[in-house]
Amino acid sequence: MDIIELSKGLDTIWVVLTAAMILLMEGGFALLEAGFVRQKNAVSIIMKVFVDIAFGALIFYFVGFAIMYGKDAGGFIGTNGFMLKGDLSHIALTITQETYWLFQCAFVIAVISIVSGAVAERIHFRAYILFTIAMTGLIYPLAGHWVWSADGWLGKLGMIDFAGSAVIHGLGGFAALAAAMFIGPRIGKFGADGKVNIVPPSNLPLASVGAFILWFGWFGFNAGSTLSATHTGIGHIAVTTMLSAAAGGATCILFTMFRYKKADPPMVINGSLAGLVGITAGCAFVSDGAAILIGAVSGIAMVLATEALEGKRIDDPVGAFAVHGVSGSIGTIAVGLFAKPELSAGVGKGYYGLFYGGGWNLLGVQALGLLTVAVWGFFVTLAVLWLIRRVMPVRVSKDEELVGLDVGIHGVPAYSSDTDFIDMESMKRSK
Amino acid sequence: MDIIELSKGLDTIWVVLTAAMILLMEGGFALLEAGFVRQKNAVSIIMKVFVDIAFGALIFYFVGFAIMYGKDAGGFIGTNGFMLKGDLSHIALTITQETYWLFQCAFVIAVISIVSGAVAERIHFRAYILFTIAMTGLIYPLAGHWVWSADGWLGKLGMIDFAGSAVIHGLGGFAALAAAMFIGPRIGKFGADGKVNIVPPSNLPLASVGAFILWFGWFGFNAGSTLSATHTGIGHIAVTTMLSAAAGGATCILFTMFRYKKADPPMVINGSLAGLVGITAGCAFVSDGAAILIGAVSGIAMVLATEALEGKRIDDPVGAFAVHGVSGSIGTIAVGLFAKPELSAGVGKGYYGLFYGGGWNLLGVQALGLLTVAVWGFFVTLAVLWLIRRVMPVRVSKDEELVGLDVGIHGVPAYSSDTDFIDMESMKRSK
Amino acid sequence: MDIIELSKGLDTIWVVLTAAMILLMEGGFALLEAGFVRQKNAVSIIMKVFVDIAFGALIFYFVGFAIMYGKDAGGFIGTNGFMLKGDLSHIALTITQETYWLFQCAFVIAVISIVSGAVAERIHFRAYILFTIAMTGLIYPLAGHWVWSADGWLGKLGMIDFAGSAVIHGLGGFAALAAAMFIGPRIGKFGADGKVNIVPPSNLPLASVGAFILWFGWFGFNAGSTLSATHTGIGHIAVTTMLSAAAGGATCILFTMFRYKKADPPMVINGSLAGLVGITAGCAFVSDGAAILIGAVSGIAMVLATEALEGKRIDDPVGAFAVHGVSGSIGTIAVGLFAKPELSAGVGKGYYGLFYGGGWNLLGVQALGLLTVAVWGFFVTLAVLWLIRRVMPVRVSKDEELVGLDVGIHGVPAYSSDTDFIDMESMKRSK
Repeated sequence: MDIIELSKGLDTIWVVLTAAMILLMEGGFALLEAGFVRQKNAVSIIMKVFVDIAFGALIFYFVGFAIMYGKDAGGFIGTNGFMLKGDLSHIALTITQETYWLFQCAFVIAVISIVSGAVAERIHFRAYILFTIAMTGLIYPLAGHWVWSADGWLGKLGMIDFAGSAVIHGLGGFAALAAAMFIGPRIGKFGADGKVNIVPPSNLPLASVGAFILWFGWFGFNAGSTLSATHTGIGHIAVTTMLSAAAGGATCILFTMFRYKKADPPMVINGSLAGLVGITAGCAFVSDGAAILIGAVSGIAMVLATEALEGKRIDDPVGAFAVHGVSGSIGTIAVGLFAKPELSAGVGKGYYGLFYGGGWNLLGVQALGLLTVAVWGFFVTLAVLWLIRRVMPVRVSKDEELVGLDVGIHGVPAYSSDTDFIDMESMKRSK
Repeated sequence: MDIIELSKGLDTIWVVLTAAMILLMEGGFALLEAGFVRQKNAVSIIMKVFVDIAFGALIFYFVGFAIMYGKDAGGFIGTNGFMLKGDLSHIALTITQETYWLFQCAFVIAVISIVSGAVAERIHFRAYILFTIAMTGLIYPLAGHWVWSADGWLGKLGMIDFAGSAVIHGLGGFAALAAAMFIGPRIGKFGADGKVNIVPPSNLPLASVGAFILWFGWFGFNAGSTLSATHTGIGHIAVTTMLSAAAGGATCILFTMFRYKKADPPMVINGSLAGLVGITAGCAFVSDGAAILIGAVSGIAMVLATEALEGKRIDDPVGAFAVHGVSGSIGTIAVGLFAKPELSAGVGKGYYGLFYGGGWNLLGVQALGLLTVAVWGFFVTLAVLWLIRRVMPVRVSKDEELVGLDVGIHGVPAYSSDTDFIDMESMKRSK
Repeated sequence: MDIIELSKGLDTIWVVLTAAMILLMEGGFALLEAGFVRQKNAVSIIMKVFVDIAFGALIFYFVGFAIMYGKDAGGFIGTNGFMLKGDLSHIALTITQETYWLFQCAFVIAVISIVSGAVAERIHFRAYILFTIAMTGLIYPLAGHWVWSADGWLGKLGMIDFAGSAVIHGLGGFAALAAAMFIGPRIGKFGADGKVNIVPPSNLPLASVGAFILWFGWFGFNAGSTLSATHTGIGHIAVTTMLSAAAGGATCILFTMFRYKKADPPMVINGSLAGLVGITAGCAFVSDGAAILIGAVSGIAMVLATEALEGKRIDDPVGAFAVHGVSGSIGTIAVGLFAKPELSAGVGKGYYGLFYGGGWNLLGVQALGLLTVAVWGFFVTLAVLWLIRRVMPVRVSKDEELVGLDVGIHGVPAYSSDTDFIDMESMKRSK
């Protein structure tokens, strides 16, 4: 036993454990989304989470990882590492490439899960599988390559995004927005008279616990992104993550008490998540105080964005854009304002935000990076969905939507009472 | 890479991972409480858990931590470290102060969550926020200072409480009792004729899974309290934790089969938790056999205490006092009986319980400490609630209670069926 | 602080954390099973999970561990280590024996939990407690001794089963099959006319989240089985675990879309689990590609086995045999085909599967081992249940089954609506 071996072992279990925590977030997404949608679509949304994790992992293994982290071509795309084969020595790692892949795989599954919520209750299952393949094989890996690979053009410009406010949440959020716009609102969400109808969440306790599981996983998400257990920033990262989430939740409690005269449970749930999304880029670079501010702003912005989206007749059933797109954008920009060189020095090069004498430099790069990722996520999602629609329906039929996707598409309700045995054989063999 | 750096990294990830496990316990509390209360209050109790974690973390950051672990004044109170600023070198740590704060923060959130269950289904949301601020900013930090800070007067007397049977569960449990007595029973719980009515839990599967999540988190709670991954007691702590929980659960299965002629699910759920609470003080100091005994006694005592409380017309909807107050007391005293010097030698000074030749010394200190913490938790909770009632109602109106706090206070039911779209705009803007 | 101490600490937290993850799987089993059965039996199945964890842990502490890992007698049985007492130095460990016990304890609880699903909705609670004692005290520990103890006869023959496709899942699955056959189908499951009725799962969101929690725990299960954080195979084990699970899930999505014209949610849930079970034996020994193949085959086999069992009028409510028995068998055999010496060299002796020049040797041993474990699990379960039936009913009465075990045996329904207070005192004292 020597110290190198020990250090490798330490880093390996750190990354494996945090990767497992991130993968558990799929359970959190499943609960959150099943709780927010109507009963008749609760299984269908969870089946999409299964698509995310099952197809997402395989596609990222066969294709996505290579495009994201393979040998760079022009700062634009990775070119080797399909199935983890080939020379990947350009990735500087203390852990094995496989361990690294697992952690990155957990990330890509999170991205596509963000989108699943925005198209809930109406997207066709087969179309969703195809979109998942595109997202995990190409859309996300390319954007990820630009920011996070050693030679990506945005990374080389100096963009920093520690655990992915832009790359994960910004991209996922804007893709979610595009998908929600493309597919259109659920039947009945917007009345003919222009009235916005509210769909009461079918199961708020499940949604809440989904949020707590996501919160737990986020410690893996942010602190695990160090990829090394001896990274001196781990404690700080975990604390800023906690404080920002708490600030997002507390702010949404107070803000909705002021605005709606009641603490609004779905907003409080999403407010905590907004705080987590907001701090994801800067968790290693900003102070505790900045983390609290970022969380608070993310929470309020999420509420306002949710209202604005409804005002624009865009139907995003779980608030995917408001939580991930908006707070991800805030978090990405916040790094350009609040990055504190003493903190980031412990991590990397010593980043200077606007408020710490960095001028407009870092802020400009962050804005450019965010814009790039958002535009890419938005328009390529539109293009891919348009392509898919040329070969199959992207949206379920009106009848299927009215009866619900659970019975309509998957042939089984999410919740059954004890009216006992049903002859489902016939139903099973013919949709 | 040197060995000091490695050791620090190892301790850091140990504390961060176990802190995350403890924070996940909030998801466990949310499920447990939402499952035990009635449907019409399932969201309102979860909103209180959000208050615990969001306000609790922020208040403990700004105030509570300093009072608990700041530079000591008179053995009574900490005086610096607000927002983690100032000289905190008196806290001997291998990890950073921030990492330490995160772990302690997870603890304070657990304390307040204990109280939330006892006042479920009737406390007013705003009053609960104020109480949370008092509990996490002052009540718990002061008691914690006395026992756990380097110069606290109880700690100096020799009181030992490894992970908080007294400081966390005793305090939380007696505060819960006081709060339940202050606020009074739920409408209809006790019939005019003196009959005790039982409120069937709305969702026992959720409550059960809450218990399993709490059980998981407890490994973080107890073993993580070593604060160092090279602490030689970690394996033993995890094993006593497991055995005591198993004994609490098994005993409650058998005891309720004997007493009620059926294995009573809510009692079995709470029996496992009672075993976990009971071993929390002594997990590092007592033998496996003593752990089994402590768990078994805690389980039976919890059942009897639940019955006794109902007999006294005190309404504690989730059994917070019976689980945390009673088992926490048993666990604190048990250290004075069963502390085994060989075990505690590996940990600290070599503690001698009554059964291992220590005489009445340790037992006396444990009893004094427990009494202090219990009296403090009980009476200050009464005082704080009395103060709050001078400025706002502590209890919801009768109408709100009858319709349920979910719709009555938060404007949305926990569970909605598919009767589709509801015009909640108006409801939303006016309570 | 020296390097040995550090290394021990590292191994200890690795094993404690992964053991805690495996124990959390009980929460996963509880959700999975409560979601798959009918509402009227949702608590009763969870009570069995409490029996698993509470009685399982204690029996394994007092008896099972000694039989499994005590000093060997004839390759057949362990003979010391009851209550962890006595000389256990023959177990070569870097961690303490207690820590090792905790990890093994988490395993035995998983085994008995597998059986609980197959007898759901009709086994009598007291009979189940007795069966749990037999399983965790004798049936599993003996089989485990043969394969996993230093001198067990199957292990000495060269059988390899890294984390238990045979020892845990094969044994548990065949015991589950025997128990399901012994106790007979639920009333109404098979019509008089030979028609198979399907019982719609009562709560698919809960079942799904159970699967995600199990998936999370499986990283502890497989990677933790290294028992050492510096084991060079950890990253690879985690990756094959992930890929096989993903392949199981993805295959079941596609296969049921092809076969039933819809992606079948219960099959997709179980398909992911089948992938996890399948890779459990070989996770450390097979390539990524083989892992994907194993997962895919396990998924399809699970679907076919579920159908075949129904065709044979065997009623296994949650698919315990199809998931654990069938995929466990596939996984055990697959090691004989796909074990790759380069991989296993990093782990142990350099195992050669049939496709890597090993000839029929390893394959033969794996088949013999699987057969032994399966036959043992199947017939001893029958014998034990037959013995139990001589002293008490194994199956609930027809009335209890029709009203459901929750109210029938445990006196409380899983789900209660807000029809408020029920006088349960009388119900409580008399079943």
